[in-house]
Amino acid sequence: MIPAPMIAAFNPPRRTLLGPGPSDVYPQVLAAQSKPTVGHLDPLFVAMMDELKQLLQYAFQTKNEMTLAISAPGSAGMEACFVNLVEPGEKVIVCRNGVFGERMRQNVERCGGIAVTVDNAWGEPVDPEAVAQALTQHPDARFLAFVHAETSTGALSDAKTLCALAKQHNCLSIVDAVTSLGGVELRVDDWGIDAIYSGSQKCLSCVPGLSPVSFSPAAVAKITQRKTPVQSWFLDQSLVMSYWSGGAKRAYHHTAPVNALYALHEALRIVAAEGLEQAWARHQAMHQELRAGLEQLDIQFVVAEPYRLPQLNAIYIPAGVDDAMTRSSLLQQFNLEIGAGLGALAGKAWRIGLMGYGARRENIALCLQALQQLQR
Amino acid sequence: MIPAPMIAAFNPPRRTLLGPGPSDVYPQVLAAQSKPTVGHLDPLFVAMMDELKQLLQYAFQTKNEMTLAISAPGSAGMEACFVNLVEPGEKVIVCRNGVFGERMRQNVERCGGIAVTVDNAWGEPVDPEAVAQALTQHPDARFLAFVHAETSTGALSDAKTLCALAKQHNCLSIVDAVTSLGGVELRVDDWGIDAIYSGSQKCLSCVPGLSPVSFSPAAVAKITQRKTPVQSWFLDQSLVMSYWSGGAKRAYHHTAPVNALYALHEALRIVAAEGLEQAWARHQAMHQELRAGLEQLDIQFVVAEPYRLPQLNAIYIPAGVDDAMTRSSLLQQFNLEIGAGLGALAGKAWRIGLMGYGARRENIALCLQALQQLQR
Repeated sequence: MIPAPMIAAFNPPRRTLLGPGPSDVYPQVLAAQSKPTVGHLDPLFVAMMDELKQLLQYAFQTKNEMTLAISAPGSAGMEACFVNLVEPGEKVIVCRNGVFGERMRQNVERCGGIAVTVDNAWGEPVDPEAVAQALTQHPDARFLAFVHAETSTGALSDAKTLCALAKQHNCLSIVDAVTSLGGVELRVDDWGIDAIYSGSQKCLSCVPGLSPVSFSPAAVAKITQRKTPVQSWFLDQSLVMSYWSGGAKRAYHHTAPVNALYALHEALRIVAAEGLEQAWARHQAMHQELRAGLEQLDIQFVVAEPYRLPQLNAIYIPAGVDDAMTRSSLLQQFNLEIGAGLGALAGKAWRIGLMGYGARRENIALCLQALQQLQR
Repeated sequence: MIPAPMIAAFNPPRRTLLGPGPSDVYPQVLAAQSKPTVGHLDPLFVAMMDELKQLLQYAFQTKNEMTLAISAPGSAGMEACFVNLVEPGEKVIVCRNGVFGERMRQNVERCGGIAVTVDNAWGEPVDPEAVAQALTQHPDARFLAFVHAETSTGALSDAKTLCALAKQHNCLSIVDAVTSLGGVELRVDDWGIDAIYSGSQKCLSCVPGLSPVSFSPAAVAKITQRKTPVQSWFLDQSLVMSYWSGGAKRAYHHTAPVNALYALHEALRIVAAEGLEQAWARHQAMHQELRAGLEQLDIQFVVAEPYRLPQLNAIYIPAGVDDAMTRSSLLQQFNLEIGAGLGALAGKAWRIGLMGYGARRENIALCLQALQQLQR
């Protein structure tokens, strides 16, 4: 026998999470998550899942029947959208203005699709004119894919305009809302979004590990008419839906992550109690407060003002300041996590998230005070 | 705006989970899971993941470097093994003696492999002679895939013998250990298992949603030498490993399910504290106690004695007893969940799980007493 390792219990410190996610989880959500596990086919659990669907529909502002949480993180939600919708040989216009647009491209290619990229500089939003041009140049494109809120740069793109363009060109829209859901205006039905995925650990302030998704009737029709089976068994929505929408006759697909779903139910109840519009306004107000403080410290934003995400503030690292050492000091001296730069912004920028439960004045005060002390 | 739904907090009852999983979660595991969320790149979290790897290596009895937990349920662990190892056109011998062998076949086909099935009746173990014959008939086969402990029937197959056969025929072995890990003898290195996946919610008595996996050096070499990219971005182990094995330089792949990993760390600490051999013996002893009680009630087992899984007892529903009504009464009157039959055994059998924390005398007493009262 290989002997048993001697490992002590893990006692995490209480951090303030102002990075790009996970964000600080609501205490009520952590409490909900630790309630006793029940079976994933238990009638009481199944009834909770019906409620969860309603709460997700509210958060997404949609009446889409196929609205559920993928039992895995946002990256799996992204993959679920692409592998279910895109069939081999189909063309997808993919907008890239950060890490996650590029990840979309990789997903398209891994499911045999043809990706046509529309590039914008990091920190800029997706340019609707460039997208219109690409759609015109590629009349055989079936999909337009873009990131609503680029987590790697903090730039917000105009999802409403982009989805309208997709519709004009008979394309289905696939939208990454990992960082936008719950933090900025997002209206799936009004804007005509066809497939959307998000994450539990950003502006919903739930534990990480789940990916809310929603598919429009047009997207569902595309899935239903597939000529080839979905390459992923785990993410095949035609199978998953027999569990999520079966009512009393739910069929087993995989064992649902029961406790994580308790957590999501509670996090979405908090969103519903606050109200989406109030939550959007709170994120904006907190962003303005952080911005005022950062400007006093002479810190510059990466993104121009009209496109700045309130919930994810990418700022340039001040000249002469050591990136890793400063973030490490924030963590060790203040139990404060801010995010490093990612991809093209690694070493050049920091990302300060004000997401969900994290978007509170006391957190902004701590962050500004800590940055000021470390700059002295 | 679509209005916010009014939904009350979810308060699950305290069930006794004696179905096929999820099993009753250790209270310490639920407590560990609700500790404050930290960042997935926090140095303290990263150190916990190193410990988690050691604990997983112990549970699997392996020194495999590529030992980790997939951030999704066991079905995704199954898919991770197939999509990483099997390239289009490669042949896989797939043993089917229940639901999960058939799911393996579907996975093989969805990643473009050629599945050759070896069938045994439901309730029987995989027959090594039939496997040897298939391996001889298909010298071009690259893999042998089978289920160690069939959750749908309660039958245990001889993984040691089957893996030795695979090796003789230059095949890599892919083993489903979802229900076996922690419940019955399992030795990844001694038996020469090349790829193995399990679930958090069976004999580990952790919350559902994670899938421990391990890949042998030969399996890693096969992955490294792939000519085609892995079709799943989320499950691509060459990318995942840059996060799990990067040490201080861990690269971001996806946001780890931080709190669920706290739970798995604690569940595996409990396994290590009890000792695997002691846990195997406890499951066997509890099975014998349940068996004696069921025999007194004249209830028959589906699986012949030498192949019975102690942790999953498939029994025939007594004549004249209503399946759904009885299970519903157990749930409503005794807060006791037992499992329905699955696939070919639906309506014919029940599945009584004695897994991990659930494998205790008080649970057996409750189950026998409740069944007896309902039969009167």
